[in-house]
Amino acid sequence: MERLPGFRDFYPEPLPDGEAWSANVRKHIFDVWHEIAESYAFQPYDGPPLEPLSLFTAKSGQEIVGQLYNFEDKGERAVSLRPEMTPTVARMVAARERHYKKPIKWYSIPQLFRYERQQKGRLREHFQFNADIFGESDPAADAELIAMLIDLLRAFSLTAEDFVIRLSSRNAWQDFFNQNGGDESKAYDFYQAIDKLERTAPEESEKKFQALGFTLEQVRNFIAAGEPTDELQAVLDNLTARGMSEFVKIDYNVIRGLAYYTGVVYEAFDRHGKFRAIAGGGRYDQLVSLVSGGKKNIPAAGFAMGDVVLLELLKDRKLLPRIEGNIEIYALLEDESKRPATLSMIQMLREGGWNVEYPLAPIKPDKQFRRALELGAEFTVRIEDDESAVLKNLNTKMEKKMPIEELAEHLLETICKNNLE
Amino acid sequence: MERLPGFRDFYPEPLPDGEAWSANVRKHIFDVWHEIAESYAFQPYDGPPLEPLSLFTAKSGQEIVGQLYNFEDKGERAVSLRPEMTPTVARMVAARERHYKKPIKWYSIPQLFRYERQQKGRLREHFQFNADIFGESDPAADAELIAMLIDLLRAFSLTAEDFVIRLSSRNAWQDFFNQNGGDESKAYDFYQAIDKLERTAPEESEKKFQALGFTLEQVRNFIAAGEPTDELQAVLDNLTARGMSEFVKIDYNVIRGLAYYTGVVYEAFDRHGKFRAIAGGGRYDQLVSLVSGGKKNIPAAGFAMGDVVLLELLKDRKLLPRIEGNIEIYALLEDESKRPATLSMIQMLREGGWNVEYPLAPIKPDKQFRRALELGAEFTVRIEDDESAVLKNLNTKMEKKMPIEELAEHLLETICKNNLE
Repeated sequence: MERLPGFRDFYPEPLPDGEAWSANVRKHIFDVWHEIAESYAFQPYDGPPLEPLSLFTAKSGQEIVGQLYNFEDKGERAVSLRPEMTPTVARMVAARERHYKKPIKWYSIPQLFRYERQQKGRLREHFQFNADIFGESDPAADAELIAMLIDLLRAFSLTAEDFVIRLSSRNAWQDFFNQNGGDESKAYDFYQAIDKLERTAPEESEKKFQALGFTLEQVRNFIAAGEPTDELQAVLDNLTARGMSEFVKIDYNVIRGLAYYTGVVYEAFDRHGKFRAIAGGGRYDQLVSLVSGGKKNIPAAGFAMGDVVLLELLKDRKLLPRIEGNIEIYALLEDESKRPATLSMIQMLREGGWNVEYPLAPIKPDKQFRRALELGAEFTVRIEDDESAVLKNLNTKMEKKMPIEELAEHLLETICKNNLE
Repeated sequence: MERLPGFRDFYPEPLPDGEAWSANVRKHIFDVWHEIAESYAFQPYDGPPLEPLSLFTAKSGQEIVGQLYNFEDKGERAVSLRPEMTPTVARMVAARERHYKKPIKWYSIPQLFRYERQQKGRLREHFQFNADIFGESDPAADAELIAMLIDLLRAFSLTAEDFVIRLSSRNAWQDFFNQNGGDESKAYDFYQAIDKLERTAPEESEKKFQALGFTLEQVRNFIAAGEPTDELQAVLDNLTARGMSEFVKIDYNVIRGLAYYTGVVYEAFDRHGKFRAIAGGGRYDQLVSLVSGGKKNIPAAGFAMGDVVLLELLKDRKLLPRIEGNIEIYALLEDESKRPATLSMIQMLREGGWNVEYPLAPIKPDKQFRRALELGAEFTVRIEDDESAVLKNLNTKMEKKMPIEELAEHLLETICKNNLE
């Protein structure tokens, strides 16, 4: 029996050669995401993976339905697996915003689902780090998010040579559009044309812009000048104070296709240009109002980063840590009569916080030792007699005999010393 | 817009009075689950939340479909949200078992989905800790799983006065059934009658057993004797060696209704009898063969523990930790001209691993201080002049002025001292 196409199994390490998606690597990435989010004082949240279909069409229109895992449930409700997290968080904030002090700083790591016509290797699910700030319209909120995005990438040892945040603004484009006599009813088409500019032939772009009352040259000059608006300057100054200026640049090519952004927008890109955007986000001050039927009006800004491009990038830069099973001690059991004493010792070590493996059923001593090495254990330990055990450090090959009850303490000292050195 | 009935939102703390399901508590429970599983040398895995419908009907028959979130996807595949994890892990093991050394010890924390006719407050999703050992038929594997289950519960400060593992065996019942002349074609009905015995009126049970060629008294005597089989004795001895005998008792009332168990079975129960089973599991040596169409034949044993009953139990025993936002330091900003220097200091502290909050936009100093207290911060810090900052310990109220670059180091020392004391 096979899993569905476009879905991933996450097996433990070691994986067969060439595979990347281990459960251990996934856990490592999630752990880092949690840690950085906490250091930025963001709080965790989550919603259901299944939501009313109308939540997603309210934000993105009926045309999104073709890309959804939607169906009718047994209670005849139109439901859908979530394709993105923003509608859910907007719904949650709208329902409870009075309960929380502002600004609300929340993050989540949902699995998201899109039914796209299958392209080779294209996934239909992925995990995504989402962070949002609600209730603060100052560009300081945008800067806080961008700084966290930078630190999320730096936490995987990526540097300013690996990625850059391309910073732009819907307001900058709106000002340009208005000051040059743009017709407000065509603003959306104009943003779409900007969004596609880098992937469109110049003649075609020229035609599009002329239909909207602009010239390609006009647009290109505005991008080339790259004059920051006041809000973008505030973001840049804020990031500079944090020592992060080398990670950002103004780039008005970025506009983010989605209709709902209202201010600062940005995307994180691979400097080598090999991959799709690593992350993207911006300000969306109208969305909570939209999702709450106009009842709540709360400024909002946020970004999202998927696991797929991040992992491809880390693999490409050889920054993917090789994560073993995290087993620290292998308890050898060479004589079955010592099994009860060995189990007792293992229990003591595990209660002391150590990760301990041992042979469940009798196997030969040399096989046990090989297993300890395969598992990447740092120590073996075996019961010597009623009172003492022999601890062996597999790196230094040093053996030490000691009273069983001192084992846990001795191990703690050993590790601490290593950490302090 | 509302979420679907039977689904939970996980909001951050603080929750409104009376609500239990915070994202912080969920994360705490998951963190503990991960930690204990690692100490028992289990490896993480995960599969897709959406699987072919046939994976679940292969194991449980067509009758399960009425309880599933199943539908036809846009590629005309019959698919279902997973109602349990065991078929997925059996599928994964069958596909890759030759790649992994035995025994395979795996765990997962999936979200599971069942469409049950809505009863008041009954959830249609929950999270479940799953652990399995593949490739080891010795009762040592069952004991290892039960020991981990005990430690998973003890990790939340539950004691032998709170819960007990009721230990039983399909083999014991099968022997009883055969030795007393049971008709093999009716064995499944017999197991079902045992499974329901505690919830069925005696007259009705009597009728059922007589139809199967037994008397209720016969069955009751067997349960009351509670003679452990050899395999159960091996499990008890193993747990006794670990100092865990007080957490288990032989109880042949337990049989686990599901058809696929083949040996040792068990359930963890609240000693006060207030709640449904906290966890349950057993040996299922035939399932991998079933799921792989007979291609793979691997002994297996495992258990599952849901988040719902566990949380109710912890709440009942007042063992649910009050988990705040985990914010350690609040940086005060009383003079906007110091914002750049403050941001620079915050960046230094966050890079040092501290969780730091601060006012994104200007707010009054007394409000900032109140916010620091509300967030449960341990320290405030503020820039004094170009070179120095003032650190205040909110517990001791002690203030200390020091050079900014020494802050991170000083904080580390303070915390270490607290930990060592």
